[in-house]
Amino acid sequence: MPSLSDLGEFGLIDRLAAALGPVASPGLVRGIGDDAAVYRIGTGPDGEARVHVVTTDALIEGVHFDRTFVPMDDLGEKAVAVNVSDVCAMNARPRYLTVALGVPDGFAVDDLDALYRGVRRACERYGCTVVGGDVTRSPALVLSIAAIGEAEEANVVYRNGAQVGDLLAVTGDLGASAVGLRLLRDPALRLEASAFPYPVRRHLAPTARLDAVEAFAHAGIRPSAMLDVSDGLASEIHHVCRNSGVGAVVQRSSVPIHPQTVAAAARLGVDPLGEAWWGGEDYELLLTLSAIDLSGLPPGLVTVVGRIVEADEGVTMEDDGQRSAFPGSGFDHFGEPHEELGIPSC
Amino acid sequence: MPSLSDLGEFGLIDRLAAALGPVASPGLVRGIGDDAAVYRIGTGPDGEARVHVVTTDALIEGVHFDRTFVPMDDLGEKAVAVNVSDVCAMNARPRYLTVALGVPDGFAVDDLDALYRGVRRACERYGCTVVGGDVTRSPALVLSIAAIGEAEEANVVYRNGAQVGDLLAVTGDLGASAVGLRLLRDPALRLEASAFPYPVRRHLAPTARLDAVEAFAHAGIRPSAMLDVSDGLASEIHHVCRNSGVGAVVQRSSVPIHPQTVAAAARLGVDPLGEAWWGGEDYELLLTLSAIDLSGLPPGLVTVVGRIVEADEGVTMEDDGQRSAFPGSGFDHFGEPHEELGIPSC
Repeated sequence: MPSLSDLGEFGLIDRLAAALGPVASPGLVRGIGDDAAVYRIGTGPDGEARVHVVTTDALIEGVHFDRTFVPMDDLGEKAVAVNVSDVCAMNARPRYLTVALGVPDGFAVDDLDALYRGVRRACERYGCTVVGGDVTRSPALVLSIAAIGEAEEANVVYRNGAQVGDLLAVTGDLGASAVGLRLLRDPALRLEASAFPYPVRRHLAPTARLDAVEAFAHAGIRPSAMLDVSDGLASEIHHVCRNSGVGAVVQRSSVPIHPQTVAAAARLGVDPLGEAWWGGEDYELLLTLSAIDLSGLPPGLVTVVGRIVEADEGVTMEDDGQRSAFPGSGFDHFGEPHEELGIPSC
Repeated sequence: MPSLSDLGEFGLIDRLAAALGPVASPGLVRGIGDDAAVYRIGTGPDGEARVHVVTTDALIEGVHFDRTFVPMDDLGEKAVAVNVSDVCAMNARPRYLTVALGVPDGFAVDDLDALYRGVRRACERYGCTVVGGDVTRSPALVLSIAAIGEAEEANVVYRNGAQVGDLLAVTGDLGASAVGLRLLRDPALRLEASAFPYPVRRHLAPTARLDAVEAFAHAGIRPSAMLDVSDGLASEIHHVCRNSGVGAVVQRSSVPIHPQTVAAAARLGVDPLGEAWWGGEDYELLLTLSAIDLSGLPPGLVTVVGRIVEADEGVTMEDDGQRSAFPGSGFDHFGEPHEELGIPSC
């Protein structure tokens, strides 16, 4: 019998999906295995088939956050954002949330108020509504959210749609959240955190890229594959390639990194690109699309970081024209933690 | 600033709902405050407006269960059942589930397999499907489930529909789960648990009453109000009366209690009726309906335990024709635990 560490997070998910048996349900378009599940709800007024998507992500004290340095309003906002990010990764818009809250003995009511202020702020930002919840005692603070989103079925984007010849692109910039966490986790460096507000805010209160979903709709384009960058760019590129049956060439120098991330990484003595590869919790979108579709997007919305190639070329990195092996996958919640980070990202 | 215990569970829920502000969302029929939220998804082939309902409930180790005596397959089954029970309380049928799992270090893979076997067993029983999830490390075992169900909008039953003159009825029998928990929690009595299999099974693997929802549909009747009995009959009757703006007279001698529950309560030296009032975790349905509708139901499906009266009569108990004060509400997850139970029910 293997241990959980032997299996690793993705081995474990495969095992659990197998334990649940074949999933067939009328109306179910996609079950376990993407950022969110997809099921039909009927047709809209225009005759288009409409779907809902549903996803769940829990934030657990001591694993995903440390109450000693995470403000409760940011935590509430983040718990919503990480779920909305999965909805966005399906090219859908969030509608309804449920919030199951586990509260430790002695937790202050004003901290709970702050937590909910953050939840509300995120709901206002993303246009979604908390419609139900559960509150219970718990040995550690737990926020478990499920998010339901809406889309036209024809617009939903999965992980497995990347085509050879597509460009590989990301929204925003990467590595900031991991660098922000390093600053916050070190009591000495925490004092300097105010010098690097960008990575710190990216860690504490990341933004789901609903604006990108809106921009795709406005431009009338649909990425061929998409997922959110929650476990590091390396991991997500491997996911999209494995799911789509393709390879990728990634331009090392193209990975977008914010100047403050670079500066903070220098202060920390770490490689900012490593933070982008393995750090996680960026909640940007990784997508593949054609060059024609790219040209229809607003300038600056995405950065091209590579291209999709045949599966037999594998996943490689290109640096000044030299190909090299691609770094391994990102954070595994059940594998050995990366020495540098210590506690797992979300 | 009050403490969480000062607020109590329901005060806390009111406070959090207020913190979230007024909830208005196109298509949202009912938000926080019932067993599940209700939102429109479109119209069915028959032109009937169709809705989804969504609910979430988390089971947390040390609060809702003790791993030393709860088999993992039963726990998986129960975590699904408590959510399906909330769907049934809306007179809806479960369709899709998400499962967020927090797993402590050192948790055995075969225990996880057993947990998922139980989840699968429940899904097969209730005809629903796990479509998504999250797996993460956690200081304690956490199962946080969200359940989405389906109904015609006209068939949904809320807590606030009880009418003066309606009968008050429950499915099945009550108090068994609380008695089962007492047997299991006492290492000496646990050895005798096999003499009382019924209450023990009712605690470990309760059944959501989807069969009652099916029976209502088959008989063509719709209860005027309904909720599931998760926190004890006393609490649920107060909920339905407060929400509906009515009073109730409850026949003390009518509350259905299983013979094994009575026998086990005698062995434990507790009042079985007290277990029904305050014990919780029965996951039966409490409903109000007209006498005519009652006559259309299969015999034995529900037991009439009282009647709905004007609000100014309050909630009272009737015993051999004598009215007396009704016992207080059921388990409050943040109030002082009942001395007898020690750990809160779900």
